[in-house]
Amino acid sequence: MCRWLAYSGSPISLEELLHKPEHSLIDQSLHARLGVETTNGDGFGVGWYGAGIDTPALFRSVEPAWNDRNLREIAGHVESPLFLAHIRASTGTAVQQTNCHPFRYGRWLWVHNGLVREFPRVKRELALAVDESLYGFIEGSTDSELLFYLALTLGLKDDPPRAVGRMVGLVEDMGHRHGVEHPLQMTIATTEGENVWAFRYSSEGRSRSLYYSTNVRTLRELYPERPRLQEVSDETRIIVSEPVLDLVGAWNEVPESSYGLVCEGEDELHTFRPQ
Amino acid sequence: MCRWLAYSGSPISLEELLHKPEHSLIDQSLHARLGVETTNGDGFGVGWYGAGIDTPALFRSVEPAWNDRNLREIAGHVESPLFLAHIRASTGTAVQQTNCHPFRYGRWLWVHNGLVREFPRVKRELALAVDESLYGFIEGSTDSELLFYLALTLGLKDDPPRAVGRMVGLVEDMGHRHGVEHPLQMTIATTEGENVWAFRYSSEGRSRSLYYSTNVRTLRELYPERPRLQEVSDETRIIVSEPVLDLVGAWNEVPESSYGLVCEGEDELHTFRPQ
Amino acid sequence: MCRWLAYSGSPISLEELLHKPEHSLIDQSLHARLGVETTNGDGFGVGWYGAGIDTPALFRSVEPAWNDRNLREIAGHVESPLFLAHIRASTGTAVQQTNCHPFRYGRWLWVHNGLVREFPRVKRELALAVDESLYGFIEGSTDSELLFYLALTLGLKDDPPRAVGRMVGLVEDMGHRHGVEHPLQMTIATTEGENVWAFRYSSEGRSRSLYYSTNVRTLRELYPERPRLQEVSDETRIIVSEPVLDLVGAWNEVPESSYGLVCEGEDELHTFRPQ
Amino acid sequence: MCRWLAYSGSPISLEELLHKPEHSLIDQSLHARLGVETTNGDGFGVGWYGAGIDTPALFRSVEPAWNDRNLREIAGHVESPLFLAHIRASTGTAVQQTNCHPFRYGRWLWVHNGLVREFPRVKRELALAVDESLYGFIEGSTDSELLFYLALTLGLKDDPPRAVGRMVGLVEDMGHRHGVEHPLQMTIATTEGENVWAFRYSSEGRSRSLYYSTNVRTLRELYPERPRLQEVSDETRIIVSEPVLDLVGAWNEVPESSYGLVCEGEDELHTFRPQ
Repeated sequence: MCRWLAYSGSPISLEELLHKPEHSLIDQSLHARLGVETTNGDGFGVGWYGAGIDTPALFRSVEPAWNDRNLREIAGHVESPLFLAHIRASTGTAVQQTNCHPFRYGRWLWVHNGLVREFPRVKRELALAVDESLYGFIEGSTDSELLFYLALTLGLKDDPPRAVGRMVGLVEDMGHRHGVEHPLQMTIATTEGENVWAFRYSSEGRSRSLYYSTNVRTLRELYPERPRLQEVSDETRIIVSEPVLDLVGAWNEVPESSYGLVCEGEDELHTFRPQ
Repeated sequence: MCRWLAYSGSPISLEELLHKPEHSLIDQSLHARLGVETTNGDGFGVGWYGAGIDTPALFRSVEPAWNDRNLREIAGHVESPLFLAHIRASTGTAVQQTNCHPFRYGRWLWVHNGLVREFPRVKRELALAVDESLYGFIEGSTDSELLFYLALTLGLKDDPPRAVGRMVGLVEDMGHRHGVEHPLQMTIATTEGENVWAFRYSSEGRSRSLYYSTNVRTLRELYPERPRLQEVSDETRIIVSEPVLDLVGAWNEVPESSYGLVCEGEDELHTFRPQ
Repeated sequence: MCRWLAYSGSPISLEELLHKPEHSLIDQSLHARLGVETTNGDGFGVGWYGAGIDTPALFRSVEPAWNDRNLREIAGHVESPLFLAHIRASTGTAVQQTNCHPFRYGRWLWVHNGLVREFPRVKRELALAVDESLYGFIEGSTDSELLFYLALTLGLKDDPPRAVGRMVGLVEDMGHRHGVEHPLQMTIATTEGENVWAFRYSSEGRSRSLYYSTNVRTLRELYPERPRLQEVSDETRIIVSEPVLDLVGAWNEVPESSYGLVCEGEDELHTFRPQ
Repeated sequence: MCRWLAYSGSPISLEELLHKPEHSLIDQSLHARLGVETTNGDGFGVGWYGAGIDTPALFRSVEPAWNDRNLREIAGHVESPLFLAHIRASTGTAVQQTNCHPFRYGRWLWVHNGLVREFPRVKRELALAVDESLYGFIEGSTDSELLFYLALTLGLKDDPPRAVGRMVGLVEDMGHRHGVEHPLQMTIATTEGENVWAFRYSSEGRSRSLYYSTNVRTLRELYPERPRLQEVSDETRIIVSEPVLDLVGAWNEVPESSYGLVCEGEDELHTFRPQ
């Protein structure tokens, strides 16, 4: 069980979300409140988009996030309008930097919470389904990274919801053929630096938690005394595995089997189906 | 808040106590049941005495113990009749190998659970109280290591209970002079490879938990169906921050302000007083 | 460019070969004398066979070997009659524990110095050639580990020279089909705990250096003043990428395209050919 | 033996100096050309000043710099007008993050190449000379960090050359009293974010190498074809343990027993004397 966070909006210092909130992502690495596993101490990562650079920066480490001084330094000195962060609780694969999220391919980032059930049994077949031109970029040994490369193989760059739908369809088919009842459990965020797509789905229809922040204008009316809310742009949005602040009315659950798109203009929320 | 374990008796593989029991020390690194902090993920260490070698071996790492493959390998391949193991939850000092317990000086090992309150205020004065010939051996920045070098300065090698008593007296005096109400909280184990001394004490008289295993002969009568208990010698003893097995009658709390001596012949339990 | 060492003979402390000699393997991690790369600082590993345990123990780390205190502790406290050690200089793949040698499968260990040329281009095809039942055990991303699993696929457990010959044949065929002129460069040692097979081969016929120690009886006559040589058994043998001691007459180059077998009775040296 | 670099001038991406030049600092971590030790693989660090933040950011790690992916990411995404970088070859103290340079106190950074000779013998006395209010900030165990806190104790914030002079005087006195002939060897850079002071000194008058870059206007005339030189401001200056680029006329040796000041307006070069 992992935890992740996606931020899109006015440029802010990473520490505003990673360290400062009462239930910040870093705090959740030691004391998560939702889910079975309360410790996410098997590595972490953050990927952010800077000004004037094509590919996002990536900082990943196998130290528990709560200990990592370098993370704290960087989080306090880097500002970004769009970043993904992730804390890991391994479901079996090795604790190593190449298994830490986000995964990156060109401009794209990917984080995942969940698992491919019976992964050792289907791993080879999943790996073979990755396009030859992409195979060589796989560096780690996780199910999560394979899901990313499958989605890339199936058209992530052109139509993310469709590509993720096809990826889920493929994983479920393969799992069923190997006798796995519920092959996939996932929340996923992916971005190319402008839009963020967030998915919540599981084969059994009981997916891990996922929340998105309420429209900032509404939040300002609810909490006129919170200066931070007055400063950020109307389009600022946070998506998280579990809320980082106890603010009534600030968080909405992403419904089962659905995905959201955070983009310029009105954000969208749609039903998600494997294809 | 940390956790530690001391074993003395028939040579066993380290993993018998570190990994195999239902609430093994390694399991406690992720899910401790007693105490405030349930995660002890800020490094670990194990020190063991081998056959025919003067000084004990030391294996310490800043990775969480639950992740560490090298620990598992070594624990599965090393047998020892006497070892100390420790999992760390930092009370503020850096997570680094030189801050991991056990600390070693010559044949002596030392583990500590607890803290010197307001340590930054008294650290310099405590460091100055360490004997000049020992000062250069201090490698880390913890209160625990300083307590060890103070005890060595005050005669640990000649009379451990008296030296630890004098060390506690010194720390309490110094704390009181700096206006600290309850300067010290500790459970400590120390050994020179033959005897193990275990201390439970705190300035406020509410010390962290400490248990010792029941006499093996009694345990055999209680649990005739447990083959492991039939194999170990009569003198085998375990001292732990919290029980590693749920066996009724197997664990006894070390009383407040007392210390035990595990040695050849009858073990001893005495009142402990600062001096 | 890496360096490795294989020892078979009277049980000795690992540090006798890893740390004590003037040009010990650990010294070579900082100052190798043969080969292009003089620093082997991208991780290390040692695998050893103990008494009464089926599988060998493995200690691997991404720290430079010259720094690693845990390695020094273990090397000083562990004795073994058969061990393989390796220091790594990455040829491109990530520096992580799962990429450190030796690799282990059941009772088998494997170390490699060299590379598969144009590895990213042939990696997928090589991975597909690994038997389905073995594929799930691959944990890292190196060419070296893939060579091991290919050899296992091709019968390593039954006939190591033949299996390695077939593996080399397969890698060369695949490389040639991808237009690689000299697909493979290797020295390899593998063992199941009793015999050690050591291979020296490269597609271009100019393989990395490999040496084996002179028969101990001869060495005793040459160096009557060396007590260590008087103590070890007649069958003791060391195979190394580069000599660890400057003793005239002590080291013999393994010829191009050949392999040696260290075993009970007379050791053997044969021509090696891809199959 | 370590290597360091100080940059002051037009904001540039850190990788422009850390990774891109032919003999970049990171390249020097594996292949230094000057000095006895050619490998600086015992950790590294970089401290940089950002826009609008009081204290500099610090990124330090015990991995060899040539391997560190996080360093490469950060170096490629962070721009700064003033930064110090350091690669370490330990002279005996532990390889741990708190022993990596730069050291930081408030706005001040400090890097050191060299050593206090017979450090274990004088360490305690040097530590006692640190002001009580500063003592608690010492986190590591190196001579270099102690020199920094001694300089702070002796007025670094008010008059750096005088404070460093007094620090050197104190270290030499103490060394001589302990019978050390040449107590100190050092090149040092320190900065508060606006000015950079760089010192070259050793008790024996044969100090480790130190170079400063030629005035940019002169460089432009020498190398009209180098676009990078046309872009940076006139006041841009680099100080390094050894040149990072082979450009004739670009580097000047800092003379023995002297110090330079890089500041707004004309830079200065003065004789340095212990006080």
